[in-house]
Amino acid sequence: MSEYRKWTLASHPVGVPDRDCFALVPCAFDDIEAGEVLIKVDYFSLDPGMRGRLSGDSYAAGLKIGDTIESAGVGTILASKSEKFAPGDVVSGALGWSEAVVHRDRGLKKIEQGLLSEKLSATAFIGVLGVPGLTAWFGLNDLGAPTQGDTLVISSAAGPVGATCGQLGKHLGLRVVGIAGGPKKCAYLSDLGFDEAIDHKAGTPLNAAIAAACPDGVNIFFDNVGAETLDAALVNMAPNGRIVVSGQVAEYNRENPIGIREVTRFITHRLRMEGLVVYDYAPKFSDAISQMAALINAGTLSYTEDIIDGIENAPDAYAGLFGGDNFGRRLIKT
Amino acid sequence: MSEYRKWTLASHPVGVPDRDCFALVPCAFDDIEAGEVLIKVDYFSLDPGMRGRLSGDSYAAGLKIGDTIESAGVGTILASKSEKFAPGDVVSGALGWSEAVVHRDRGLKKIEQGLLSEKLSATAFIGVLGVPGLTAWFGLNDLGAPTQGDTLVISSAAGPVGATCGQLGKHLGLRVVGIAGGPKKCAYLSDLGFDEAIDHKAGTPLNAAIAAACPDGVNIFFDNVGAETLDAALVNMAPNGRIVVSGQVAEYNRENPIGIREVTRFITHRLRMEGLVVYDYAPKFSDAISQMAALINAGTLSYTEDIIDGIENAPDAYAGLFGGDNFGRRLIKT
Repeated sequence: MSEYRKWTLASHPVGVPDRDCFALVPCAFDDIEAGEVLIKVDYFSLDPGMRGRLSGDSYAAGLKIGDTIESAGVGTILASKSEKFAPGDVVSGALGWSEAVVHRDRGLKKIEQGLLSEKLSATAFIGVLGVPGLTAWFGLNDLGAPTQGDTLVISSAAGPVGATCGQLGKHLGLRVVGIAGGPKKCAYLSDLGFDEAIDHKAGTPLNAAIAAACPDGVNIFFDNVGAETLDAALVNMAPNGRIVVSGQVAEYNRENPIGIREVTRFITHRLRMEGLVVYDYAPKFSDAISQMAALINAGTLSYTEDIIDGIENAPDAYAGLFGGDNFGRRLIKT
Repeated sequence: MSEYRKWTLASHPVGVPDRDCFALVPCAFDDIEAGEVLIKVDYFSLDPGMRGRLSGDSYAAGLKIGDTIESAGVGTILASKSEKFAPGDVVSGALGWSEAVVHRDRGLKKIEQGLLSEKLSATAFIGVLGVPGLTAWFGLNDLGAPTQGDTLVISSAAGPVGATCGQLGKHLGLRVVGIAGGPKKCAYLSDLGFDEAIDHKAGTPLNAAIAAACPDGVNIFFDNVGAETLDAALVNMAPNGRIVVSGQVAEYNRENPIGIREVTRFITHRLRMEGLVVYDYAPKFSDAISQMAALINAGTLSYTEDIIDGIENAPDAYAGLFGGDNFGRRLIKT
């Protein structure tokens, strides 16, 4: 391996990012300095929530043309000038859409091999035990303020955040209803133990489908979609309902946002809506990861990965996320 | 007084309610039963927030055709078959758009004459010390979660809720910016001690005007208007900002709601939006009223009333609220 490849930003996308927005660039290995490590990237993730950074106008600093596309990854240390890591260590961190990376020895997490099992692979640390899983954990437990017997509705429920959220909700004694597109995803929700699955492609208007599935109203709506989906939930919220704004995938590729109409419900039903930035909970990550790892090894919490081979496929696989063609956490195996 | 008049609902309004939606009905005095009192209504209030009940689809039970129009009022006991009240007592309660009412002895509050002063009239108990003032108090103190130095922006700031909220905000050490329509209302906000007043009729787009008035962003947006006004505030919220949904006067007369577009800001700026129903705080009303009465008598909190003479003028005076032609709390003197 004398050279490696990485994806950089070629142009700021408008709408769903196509392949022309990205450039696959060959790189020579640089020497590493004191405090740095060289990592061979084994897997990296594809996240709809990263879309904002491509436009350069979101919460994390926007990417500039030529920047490496950011993502979480799992890799193996090839060379180290740090006391913290040795060659052969497996680490997770913000490794980017790349086959290799020279990285400071900060911001990397060494994956303890003893935690891994048949049920728990290293890639879990950038999935169910990474940002998507932690988003579900803190969104549900903190902003959702769940009480046993509450009805929890989740949009994009078959995605990595939604699927984790629903299983955690069942573990807490909630009635869990998932919204997903198509019979295959809905069957997956049933397999995960969801009480009901709403197929938003089945033709029933979504607000009627939610009403039918939630006769006592919705106490917690965990939203990954936004726009009309959020409005359909709003008109079904029970008094004092909580809306967790985890993602707004229906909005990310639009020049003009769609938004919501049913704002007066906030008054008539005393609703609360709150946005989640998972990094705000960083001091509590370790504890949450331990608890979720125990749930995974106990068979209470499962996760699904959608692994695509080859770094060259990253842009198409990323665009596909916005058409809902993935099933589980989408990763690239480099 | 052998007969009195009251306004009843003649038809459910669509849009701004006009006079034809109401009927002024003559009534004979009924005998009162044990546990009842007969009240001469001296003043009653006109509230935009009551609009939903006229359509019959809001949080409190909707009115039926023929029902007396509901409102807060101040009146004098004429006759009593209750130990709680004696003739001559002045009371506040839900007396309706009426010149007189037979009322159970529950749900009425006797106004202690000792509390009244040159600065504090009996009508304050259906205004600054009634629902509008309590809405400002609990919306700001509970949902707003204010911290000294925060920037508070208030829409419909010259109305009874907004004017109270702004003065309470100044008392708490906040920077207070009010949005109102026209130079007269903006001058009123300055007189009340607001730091800045934005005239939304002055031609500057509202989001630019808020940005100019709030260089560090908006920590608390206390919203009485909704729709485009709420969107203009959303794009100016500081991280972790709170939005108090107190009223949505821009939405009340619309068949199809306008809503908001900038929902992704909830994620990028970790925003929280919560609706307020003041009656949820009923156990804490007495304490809040005492504290606000003390502020009034100390000259820290003032209020303005817009008193219109004659029960026959109630419908036109009510419709005028939606055109913004009032100044202070609008009351009818019967």
